[in-house]
Parts: sequence; C-alpha cells; structure tokens
Amino acid sequence: MSEVKNSVDAALRDRALRVVPGGMWGHLHANRLPEGYPQFFARAEGCRLWDVDGRSYLDFMCSWGPNLLGHHHPEVEAAAERQARLGDCMNGPAEVMVELAELLVDTVAHADWTQFQKNGTDATTSCATIARAGTGRRKLLAARGAYHGAVPWCSPSVVGVTSEDRAHILYYDFNDAESLRAAATEAGDDLAGIIVSAYRHDLARDQELPTQGFATAARAICDETGAALILDEVRAGFRLDLAGSWERFGVRPDLAAWSKSIANGHALAAVTGRDWLRQAASQVFVTGSFWCAAVPMAAAVATLTVLRRDNIVARLEAMGTRLRDAIDASAARHGVALRQSGPVQMPLILFEDDADFAKGNLFCQTALARGVYFHPRHNMFLSAAHGEAEIDEAIAAADTALAAVAAGSRTAA
Amino acid sequence: MSEVKNSVDAALRDRALRVVPGGMWGHLHANRLPEGYPQFFARAEGCRLWDVDGRSYLDFMCSWGPNLLGHHHPEVEAAAERQARLGDCMNGPAEVMVELAELLVDTVAHADWTQFQKNGTDATTSCATIARAGTGRRKLLAARGAYHGAVPWCSPSVVGVTSEDRAHILYYDFNDAESLRAAATEAGDDLAGIIVSAYRHDLARDQELPTQGFATAARAICDETGAALILDEVRAGFRLDLAGSWERFGVRPDLAAWSKSIANGHALAAVTGRDWLRQAASQVFVTGSFWCAAVPMAAAVATLTVLRRDNIVARLEAMGTRLRDAIDASAARHGVALRQSGPVQMPLILFEDDADFAKGNLFCQTALARGVYFHPRHNMFLSAAHGEAEIDEAIAAADTALAAVAAGSRTAA
Repeated sequence: MSEVKNSVDAALRDRALRVVPGGMWGHLHANRLPEGYPQFFARAEGCRLWDVDGRSYLDFMCSWGPNLLGHHHPEVEAAAERQARLGDCMNGPAEVMVELAELLVDTVAHADWTQFQKNGTDATTSCATIARAGTGRRKLLAARGAYHGAVPWCSPSVVGVTSEDRAHILYYDFNDAESLRAAATEAGDDLAGIIVSAYRHDLARDQELPTQGFATAARAICDETGAALILDEVRAGFRLDLAGSWERFGVRPDLAAWSKSIANGHALAAVTGRDWLRQAASQVFVTGSFWCAAVPMAAAVATLTVLRRDNIVARLEAMGTRLRDAIDASAARHGVALRQSGPVQMPLILFEDDADFAKGNLFCQTALARGVYFHPRHNMFLSAAHGEAEIDEAIAAADTALAAVAAGSRTAA
Repeated sequence: MSEVKNSVDAALRDRALRVVPGGMWGHLHANRLPEGYPQFFARAEGCRLWDVDGRSYLDFMCSWGPNLLGHHHPEVEAAAERQARLGDCMNGPAEVMVELAELLVDTVAHADWTQFQKNGTDATTSCATIARAGTGRRKLLAARGAYHGAVPWCSPSVVGVTSEDRAHILYYDFNDAESLRAAATEAGDDLAGIIVSAYRHDLARDQELPTQGFATAARAICDETGAALILDEVRAGFRLDLAGSWERFGVRPDLAAWSKSIANGHALAAVTGRDWLRQAASQVFVTGSFWCAAVPMAAAVATLTVLRRDNIVARLEAMGTRLRDAIDASAARHGVALRQSGPVQMPLILFEDDADFAKGNLFCQTALARGVYFHPRHNMFLSAAHGEAEIDEAIAAADTALAAVAAGSRTAA
C-alpha cells in the first residue's frame, strides 16, 4: 500500500542509488527520517511542500532553515528576478552587494563589516581563520556536540578526518562556564577564539537557551584574553532577534556566521565582524566562484527588508507559542509525557521514555499521514508563512498523532 | 578624467570600504587588476559586461570560469525558471538531481557516481575526505603552487592557517614524475591520494599541459599504492573535454572535482568518483544548506545538454585558435615578444622581460579602453558566446594594445 503511494519516490530512489552513493548524502538523506517520509520533492509554496507522488505537506522544517518567509515570497522573488534580468555571476559584484552589506551592518548590532560566502560552513570556517589571523593564535574552543559545519575541523563525523584537522580545537560544555574557563586556561596564551551556537540545538537532545551567566562568561573570557567571541548564527539567525541572538543578554560577539535564512532559500552566507578584526578579514584569502553572485544578494536585501518592516520575529514567536501551548495541552489530555524545548519558533518535541525514538517516530509518521511534516529528532523551524490557520491545522494533526502515541503506549504496556 | 568616467564605481568602492574589509575580498577584488578596471558590474549578456558607469566590455574572464555558454543563455535560463516556479531549496532534492547525476555519470568517463556541493572548494575538500575515508590513510600529494581552493588545507595564503592544517599534505612539482614519486615514497603506506589540476594554471606563470609521462606516472603510482587519483577539474572542466580533461592521455582519475561552469553561472559543484570509493563517499558527512537546491541542478542539466549537443568544446578551440594565431601575428608585426600558453580556450598572454607586469598591465589597460576585458596574470576563459565577430573585435583591440606595448618599449629603451 505504502509502496503504491510512494511509487514515484521509490523509483527515483532506485535510480539515485545507481549514480549517487547511498542514493543521497548529508542532512537531507531520508534515511535520517522515519519510514514513509519522501526523499524527493516536486514543488513548494509558502509553508507547503508537495512530494513527487503528489502528496502535500504543511512543512515544519523549512528546508532545514532557509525558508523563513515562505517559498516563492513575492517580494523576495521579484527582487531576485529583477537582478537576474541584469546579471548574476559576473566578473565582480553588483551594486546590490554594497546595499546588502550596509543593510546587514545596520541590522546586526555588533557588525562593523561583513563578507559573503555560500555555505554556513564557509562562514564558520572564515570566522575561525579570521580569528586566528587577527590574534596570531591558534586555539579555538567549541562546545562538545555542537554542529558548526561539515568539513574536517568541525564535522559531526570523523570518517575521513585526521586528528590534525582538530589539533587546535578544545572542547567545553554548553552553558557550563566552568568548563569554558577550563578550556580557555588550557589554551593559555594561544587562545584565538570561542565559537558558540546562538543556543544549544544539538541533534536528538533537549534544546537549551544560553544562560546569562554563560553568555557573560564567554564575553568576559574573550575580553580578558583578547580572543574573538564567534557566534554561530547559521541556524538561529534572523529567527530570534534580527540584531543578534545574544542581544537579550547584552552580549555581542566579535564575529558571527550567518547563512540558511539570510536570502530566504537563495544560496548565501555571511560573516559579520567588529572593527578590531577588519584588517585580519581583509588579509585572509577566502573566496569562491559564486560568492559575489548578485541574485542571492538581491534576495537577501528583500528578505532583510521584509523581516525588519513586518516584525517577523514577533510573528514567529506568536505562532510558535500557539503551537507549543496547544501541543502541551493535547499531550496532557492524552496522558503523553513530552518535552518541548528551545525557542518556540524553532520547536523540538521529544518524548519521555523514548530512547529509541519509537514514540517520536510514531508521532511524526502519524502527523505525516495527516499531511504535516514534523521531525522527531532535529529542531524544526517556523516560517512567516505559518499563520493561525496553518498552526491550527498542525495542532489538529499533532492531536491525532499524540492519540496514536498514547494508544501505542497502552498497547506496549 | 578617469575619476569622472568611473564615478559610480568609485562611489560604490567608497561605500563598500566602510562595510566590507578592504572594500572587497578574494579573487574578484579589483585591486588584483591594473588601475582602471571596474569593481562593480551592472549587467551581463552573452560574452559582454556593463560596468556601473555604463561602459561595456567584451569579456574574456567569463566570471573567472562559470560563464561557459554566455550570460542569459536562453535554454539554461528557461530550465532554471521552470524549476524555480516549482521549487528550489526544499526539504530534499527534486527529480532533477537524479537526472543531473545520470547525465554527469553518462558524460564523465571515469564517473560511476556523483555528489553535489556549492563551491569548487567543497568539491576538492570532499575528494580529500573521501580519499582518506576510502583508503584509511592520511597523506595527500599536491603540486607546489597549485590552487585547489580557499580553505586552510589548500589556501594560497597562510594567514590564519596553522601548520597542522597541512600536516598531511606533501608537495611535488607539476609535470615532474620524479618529484611525484619522491613525494609518494615519503608518504609511504599512508598515501591516501594525489590531487592534480587538469593542467597547470598557476597564477602569473606560463600555463602547462600535463605530459603523457606525468599523467601515466600519477595513475601508476595510485595503482601501485592503492591511493586515489584526484583530478581537480574545477577550472578546466567542460572546456577541454566533456568526458574528462585527461581522456586524451588515456588516464582516468578515481575522483574528480567540478564546479565553475557546470551550471553556466548558477552555484553548483560536483564530485565524481569510481565504484571503489562509493562506500567511502556514502560514509563521510558532507553537506550544506543549499547543496540540493533544484534550480542550479536544472541549469546544469541544460548546460551539459547544450555542451554535448552543440560540441561546444570544438567551438571554443576554434575561436581560441583564431584569437591565439592573430595575437601571435600581431605581436610579430609590432615586434613584441610574448608567450601564449595553455589550452587556446583558456588563454594566457605573458610578455618577455616583464617581471613587474608593466607590459601586461599596459596591454590589458589599452584593450580595456577599447572595450575588451583581458587579464594580465590569470588565465582567461572563452565562452560559447564568443563567435568570429567577437574574436575579431578582440583581435583588433589586442592589436592596438600591442602597438601601445611596442611604443612603451621604445620609449623605455
């Protein structure tokens, strides 16, 4: 039955398996999801996706972040098309690069300057390189288990990675100021920087906002040692606070890495930095064939303009709160114990007594059958295209899914 | 006078200087070019560019490679727009990823499989990681002075780079089989791979095609040791031979890195590989937020289709030969001693007795004033949009420029 329903997807997976190792790779591999999730998508509109078998989904992954304003956002696409008619990848940037740089520096509180790239990994790696160039030191402190990209110095896998790739990375525990101080002490006078995610969004564990004490300690250690505080905003950027995710703590980084949602799905990344690292940023050699392409920059100008004008963060918070509260109430009604963690606009739902994610998978698969695309282990994302009607649609699907979890638990018991 | 003519460009540079370190970065920084070259571009069409001050150029840099079929190629853009109306960056790839993978595997002779990325650097770094994963070894041999990307293991600058980043990179001299053997011996049983450019296109020196002996030796060393031969096709790929730049030698790599022209300016990169590395490729964790975006893949399918159907490589060779022969004749007429090297479709013109590039700069600046955009030190690129009329236009500008070089030499003498 399910094979018939997924027949186009299954046929594409078979074809892919012949010409792509494992049929797919990386974070979008459907083997990272419960059975029944599609691998291939036919189209997208707003916060909805259609798979290649014609099934539609109300989406809560938003392309794993990039889709912040909704697919085919009219202002973003109009700006992109206008620029595309002129030129995209040329022998140098277009005027829009300057407009975007000015807008980003005006939007992000700590930013005195910016540079653009393609991948989030480009941005975090550039930050590491700039921090080393600016301090003349080598050691970087990173949180155990944090995701900062998919290259050897930071990849979550060590397959194909050498120990030297991480020779100068020391580890601390997120939100543990003591462990951060200990790592800084170990780095001694070779401490180039501390890299830290906007909040803890490690896979398959409760999300955790930074504490004031931790954020303050990270800033203080950098101030004391002359190291650079690097905020990894790739995932959370522009969803918590346009000025920077640590503004609420009164803590500003020296460097920040941005990507994912910056151009609403067009490929772009950015580093923002403070003046004391400006010269270092101009001296490191970082570049890419498409880094100055004008179309994604035009899309980014439009995205940031809409984000600022329409107070999108507040909308995401309101919709995220509506979803979280309703799911909590529904779970209580069904007697299902679950934990929702992290910012409401980047939801994560984990179940108690669910080490093998059986409950989480059942919850997601049931919701998927009702046309709502959740993720059982990775934080999800809201977009501006999620309005009250869409949230209520998700709440209804979640209620059915929680009933299934409750029924499954009674059967298992 | 030149300030008046460049007034919009100059004003943008001033603005950029405030918000971008050094006003620009990387290979597209105009400070890498002689005075008078624009930094910012307003539009592009075919093989022509317009700067922000309204001056037009017949372009021989092709965005430093990506623009292979001409800007706004109708079939490429129609395919991109068709896909854009459906969806671009979604929760997984579109069907076009499979089509592209099949087409690439069918086009590239050594390829049993492929994976996609955004930057050329992503592709070369993935090759290094896959080679290490597939062999369980660490050492990579790279040619001294070769460019394989802009991250610490291979960047042309060591600013912000640690020695550990290159702990397992050993160096050989391009086209020197003895030095390659010596490096392989030094790596011993820890040799994971040899990375080599399709041909030698190092900055500011004569280009050099590989010799048959060198190509054969590289293959033989890998066969003897079980290491992976990695061909860096990022720059030359699809301009010399669609099946692979070393097909002429009967030498096929185990892995190849592609980017730049693969989607005619849309941001995309690819790794192709042989079966024995398929499992390793499925095990390394490499990914990026935009790597499965469907629009660049649709553009790549159209690009490869046109390349195959219209025998574009032969056209590039014919036009490149026309340009090279005419410039040689013109230089002889003017009594200017110059060297044209490398494949005709990727021209480089260097002048004798020109250590400071004064002649090269004068040549390029004079051509630029005649509306032709050459580069004095980096290899140039032809596109399919360069026809006989455009080549003849360039020849005329080059003739004027060579007269200026001849006059300059007489003045200096």
